Order: sequence, then structure tokens, then C-alpha cells
Amino acid sequence: MKALGPVPAGYGSLGGVLAVGGRAVTEWVEEAGGTPLFLYSADHVRRRVAELRAALPGRVALHYAVKANPFVPLLGLMGTLVDGFDIASGGELATVREAGLPLDRVSFAGPGKRDAELEAAIVAGVTLNLESEGEARRALAVAERLGIRPRLAIRVNPEFDLKGSGMKMGGGAKPFGVDADRVPALARAVIGAGADWRGFHIFAGSQALDAAAIADTQAQALALAARLAEESGAPLPHCNLGGGLGIPYFPGDAPVDLKEVGARLAERLETLPDALQGTAFCIELGRYLVGEAGVYLARIVDRKVSHGEVFLVTDGGLHHQLAASGNFGTVVRRNYPSAIATRFDAPVEEEASIVGCLCTPLDKLADKGGFPRSEEGDLVAVFCAGAYGASASPANFLGQGPAAEMLV
Amino acid sequence: MKALGPVPAGYGSLGGVLAVGGRAVTEWVEEAGGTPLFLYSADHVRRRVAELRAALPGRVALHYAVKANPFVPLLGLMGTLVDGFDIASGGELATVREAGLPLDRVSFAGPGKRDAELEAAIVAGVTLNLESEGEARRALAVAERLGIRPRLAIRVNPEFDLKGSGMKMGGGAKPFGVDADRVPALARAVIGAGADWRGFHIFAGSQALDAAAIADTQAQALALAARLAEESGAPLPHCNLGGGLGIPYFPGDAPVDLKEVGARLAERLETLPDALQGTAFCIELGRYLVGEAGVYLARIVDRKVSHGEVFLVTDGGLHHQLAASGNFGTVVRRNYPSAIATRFDAPVEEEASIVGCLCTPLDKLADKGGFPRSEEGDLVAVFCAGAYGASASPANFLGQGPAAEMLV
Repeated sequence: MKALGPVPAGYGSLGGVLAVGGRAVTEWVEEAGGTPLFLYSADHVRRRVAELRAALPGRVALHYAVKANPFVPLLGLMGTLVDGFDIASGGELATVREAGLPLDRVSFAGPGKRDAELEAAIVAGVTLNLESEGEARRALAVAERLGIRPRLAIRVNPEFDLKGSGMKMGGGAKPFGVDADRVPALARAVIGAGADWRGFHIFAGSQALDAAAIADTQAQALALAARLAEESGAPLPHCNLGGGLGIPYFPGDAPVDLKEVGARLAERLETLPDALQGTAFCIELGRYLVGEAGVYLARIVDRKVSHGEVFLVTDGGLHHQLAASGNFGTVVRRNYPSAIATRFDAPVEEEASIVGCLCTPLDKLADKGGFPRSEEGDLVAVFCAGAYGASASPANFLGQGPAAEMLV
Repeated sequence: MKALGPVPAGYGSLGGVLAVGGRAVTEWVEEAGGTPLFLYSADHVRRRVAELRAALPGRVALHYAVKANPFVPLLGLMGTLVDGFDIASGGELATVREAGLPLDRVSFAGPGKRDAELEAAIVAGVTLNLESEGEARRALAVAERLGIRPRLAIRVNPEFDLKGSGMKMGGGAKPFGVDADRVPALARAVIGAGADWRGFHIFAGSQALDAAAIADTQAQALALAARLAEESGAPLPHCNLGGGLGIPYFPGDAPVDLKEVGARLAERLETLPDALQGTAFCIELGRYLVGEAGVYLARIVDRKVSHGEVFLVTDGGLHHQLAASGNFGTVVRRNYPSAIATRFDAPVEEEASIVGCLCTPLDKLADKGGFPRSEEGDLVAVFCAGAYGASASPANFLGQGPAAEMLV
């Protein structure tokens, strides 16, 4: 039997059935008209934001990275909870607009921004996090053509990375941002061209669980921002310190010690160098805010045995849960937390693999996990499904189409 | 510099620009209204089918696995070239219907078929490849309720796998098909229930390049079919021998020796056991028919240098080319064949990485390949993009949306 990842805190049962938002998931499935279904718990997101606000220094604003989950009702909720938003494409700009979010609190990072995307962002008053000197030239040219003063920041490719990070975004050659040593010259050029100078975006990695590593990286980001601000010769209005806080997905993973991260950041902010005294800071989180708030539900369509092994074949699969299947940036596949949602309180009775309905051996949601005995019609739950699930999976593969989504 | 995979045969240039279907790709991009764009060459598909027809025994029919590429105009073309189709979902049933394909030549394999999908298939006269005893019970119940005699075959989980196969579908415990030793009993039950008995579907693996391994597997499938037919006590009307023929993606890969596969299959068919004398055979291919006919085109939006390394940032990416990025069933990432399409004849001048526009280090189309020096505005081509590209990638990730597709 292989271990399953840890079920996130805050999930209980009603009448033996997994409950989300105060109701058994069977009721939500009925309301949605069936499975597969993503449920996002608004309460879970609210609690998470409250924990962050309590732990982080008040001076540090909280931004949401829309790419983690762009479901419009969820964005509407985030609009009541966080201070700003980061988008990664013109498509996400359209989505935050649809959600009614204030566009002057939106920044846009991402390599390969097309001219049409630069134009839409500049017109909307969105801050562009410039990824290269070439992009800066194009953005300034677009702004001049439009007669609009663009809001420009520079994304910095830092020399350091986030240790233990699931996704390294800094340290060495990268397609993201501008190498730190070229940033001051670009900042002077952008300011000299008359842009509304917005500062730096320093993103060193994501999905780290070690508070000390996160705190070290934030300290390095602050030191780098101070140095680059001094060398740029201009006050730094804003600095996005990146994200990095991960969530536990796999057996043995433990949550980030948020108090330590907050305390160490507060310490740093009390001894800021002169160059950063007037700077507004934010951290930008996606997965950490919404990942554990999401549950993916699928129904067992077939319970079958092959060579003595039990397979629970569901109507869901990797077309909605690519990362959980182990096919997205994973070298060794490990099990996400999962459960038989309709027998949530029952003891482990057998070893079984939960698979999807796709005709490929890649379509595995839980490999040889321990579950209560289940039957066709039971619901399975995959946890940690709130981030990089629905929007980061090949929904149309094998003609299946997207899952329903609900904010509850 | 890391090697690139082999550019498939049949691609040349016009005026120094990669040509597809007799025209420079720049013209197709203009006609499509921009990049990213998938081009599928009808001529390439026709040639591939002709090569297969010439090499394979005439008795063996050719089926197309729709999952490889369900683009409707391409399905229309396939309808003029092959003898049957395999679908993997109710969604694909709707697609083959939209393409105007004859539904009585369609079979439906895939674990986790829902009752609604069974019903749609039975009503349409599609052959169901049953994946389990439970599915057989459900299919028979649905058919009885509808008052329709269902066309039923059994998908067999063979004891053997396809050696060197990129995707093993047989040999040991699998969610696919019915373990071989239980097949005769199920066949008798299905026939006894009055179904229109269609035979066996034996799929042992896919994406193999070794002709001897493919031929061995076909021989084993024939022997297994004979044994199971005898034990079932009924004539075997049809047997799908599976697919397995791969295409070269990576440095060092060589094409399948089609003549050897055809010759060895012909030999086997001349000495068929009695149980298979009246059986109609087919092989079912997806990737092999259309994979090399497809080219994915993206435009360089930014040419940037980080720590001395060149990154060509394009407006495409893993949201259209998940497998090429190395994130779909790959353990060690290797480069697909790729090129600067607008400098197709130019010599290698530099080492560069072609990346997508997504804000993730996973979004890499070519890692440190050798290319002619290119600039913003140049087009890049990723080859072998005709199968498991557009439909098998997370098109909506980071709000990007799908690429255009054209059959030319």
C-alpha cells in the first residue's frame, strides 16, 4: 500500500459523507447536476487569508496570482479579501475585468507578452512587470502611440533561488525577468522615458514548505531591492517580494510555519535600508490562498479487478487533475491526498487505485492507496484541487470536456 | 548544445521558409490570422496511409484512433482513407457524427463509460469494446431498456506487453479491458444475452519503433485471439489487433520498418488457426497516421539573453504542446524536432532555448538546441505535432486559449 498525501485541515463529514461549506458533497453534486465537480470553499479561503493577515506584518499587502485559479466567482470573493492581483495574459485581463476587479490594482507578469496584450494592459491602467529590455521598448512604443503614461515595473531575475522550492524561478539563466545586474540601467531608461515607475517584482520560486528558506529568500529579495533601487537612483514606490509559500500535497509534507515567516519578515521590515523606507511591499500568492480550499469530486463508474488489483474507474481524471496524476512537472509520481467521499469516516479496508476514464495508463488519481471498500456510485475526492486544477489540465483530451466548478 | 529530434521526412522549404502543403508556412499563418497555429498536411496523411496499405496484408483493415487528433476536417479526410474509427468518449462520438463518419464503422473503447455514453453508442450502432464484466452488465441493461440489440466486443487485457512501447497497455494488472483468463466466460455471457457479437480488441501498447517487437506482439495477439475464440465456443467475427506503431520524436529515434511489420503479419495470416479463418482483422492507429503530418507554429515575441543563454520567447507553449514540453508521461525531457521555420535552410549559428509565453519554467519547447540566429517576428516550428497536441494540452492554462488549426 502506498501512502496518500495529507488531507488538509478543516474537512469533516456529515452523516459519514465528506462535507464542504457545511453540506455533504453529495448535495453539492446534486445541485451541480453531476460529476466531475470542483468545489471551492469560500470559508476555507477566508480563513487562510485571515491567518496570513494575522501572521504577516501589516505593511505587507497581499496579492492574488490569478493563474492559480481564475474561476470568476472565486475572483469575486478574492476581490473582497486581498489588496491586488497578478495576471499572466490578456486572457486573464479579460477574466479579472469580468469579475469586476479594480484594474488599477492589477499587475501583469509573464514572458512573451504580445503587443496587443501590452496595449490592453496599458489602456486598462494595469501595471506591466517588464520581462526584458525588448519588452520595455515595445511597451513604451505602444504607450506613446496611445498617448497614455504606462505604469511600468521590472521583473527581476534574482541571483538566488528559493531553496526546496517546487518551481524555481530564479538563480541563473531564466526566461523570466531581467538579470539583476542589468536592472538599474533599464529602470533609469524606463523612468527617463516618462513612465509611471512602479518598482520591482522579485519572484524566486514557489511551492516551498520550509519557513526558514522562505524567510531567507524574502530577506535576500529585500536586500536585492535595496541595492537595485540605490543603483537606479530613484525612490522605489513598490516591491513585489514574490510568493513561495507552498501547501502539503504528499506523504510527509507539513504545512509552512506561517508565524516564523511573518516574524522574520517583520524583523527585516523594522531595519529597512534607507532606499526602501518609502516602499510599499506585497507578497503574491496563488496556490497558498486557494489550493487547499478546493476538492475535486468524481464518481466511481466501474469497480474492477485485474490480476488481483482493485481499480476504481471514475468519470474524472487527468483531464481535470493533470498535476495529481503526476504528469505536470513531477519526476516521481506520489499520491495527492484523496478519499472515498461517500465513506469519509470508514476505516481502510483495501488497497485500490483510483483511475480516470481516459484510455491511457497516465490517468491515475491515486496509486495503490488504502481506502474503505467502495462500489460503483460512490464519490471519490481528490484534495488540494483549488489551484492549478481545472485551468491547468487538458480538459478536452479524449473529448471529455471541462468539469463543473462551484464556489460554496 | 543538446540534440533535437529528427525532422520527419517530406518537409522542405520555399524561399528559405518551411513549406507545408506546397506553400510557405508564413502564408498559412497569414491566412489563419496569426499564431499559434497547427498545420496538418493532408498529403502527408495520404502518403502515410498509402505506405501502410502497400506494406500491410490486404486482409487487415485500417482503423483510426480519433483520440490522436479529433480535428473535424481531419476526420473528414480520414473518412476517405481508412476503414473504421475508434472513439474514447461520448464527446468523441459527437465529433465523429459532426464529421459525417459512418457510425456503423465506429468502435468505442475506454474505461469508465457512463450509462449515458453507453446509451448514445448503442443507439448509434457503434460497437462497444467492453472493458469489464460490470460494463457488460450495464450495456446489456441499457440495450434491453432501449429494445436495441447492442454490438458488443470485449477488450482483452493481454498477458503480454509491447516491448519498447512508450505506453504499455497490457501485461499485468491494468484498468483496461478484461483479464484474458476471464474473457471466454464473458464472451459466452454476452453472446448468450443475444448481443450482436463483434469479437475482441487486443491493445498491448503504443509508440514502439522496433518492427520485430511490433510483429511479435501482433503474433501474440493472434495466438491469444485464437485461444480465446476457441474457449468462447463461438466464431470470432472481428479482431482489432491494436496499434503500436510509433513515430520518431527524439534524437536517435528511427522510423518503424514498415515492410518488416507487414511481411511478418502476412506470414502469420497465411497460417491462421481454424478459429480465426473467418475473422476480419484490423489494426488501429492514431499517432502513426497523423503525428508527423502536423506542424505547430509560434512566433518569437522576445529574444532575450540571461546569463549568456539565449531564450526565444514565443507566443505558443505547453498549453498547446504539453508532450513536447516534456510534461506528459516523460521521465527525462528530450527535445522534439524543431526549427526556425522562417530560416529553414539556414545553418546552425547559435545555441538557444525555445520557450513558451507561460510564466512557468515547465514551458520549454526546445532546450539548448542549435538554430540559425533568429529575431523577434521569426516563426518557430515544432514537428510531430499532428497527434496528442492541440487536444491533449491544457489550452486554457494562464488564460491563453486554444491555437488555431488548419488542414492544408
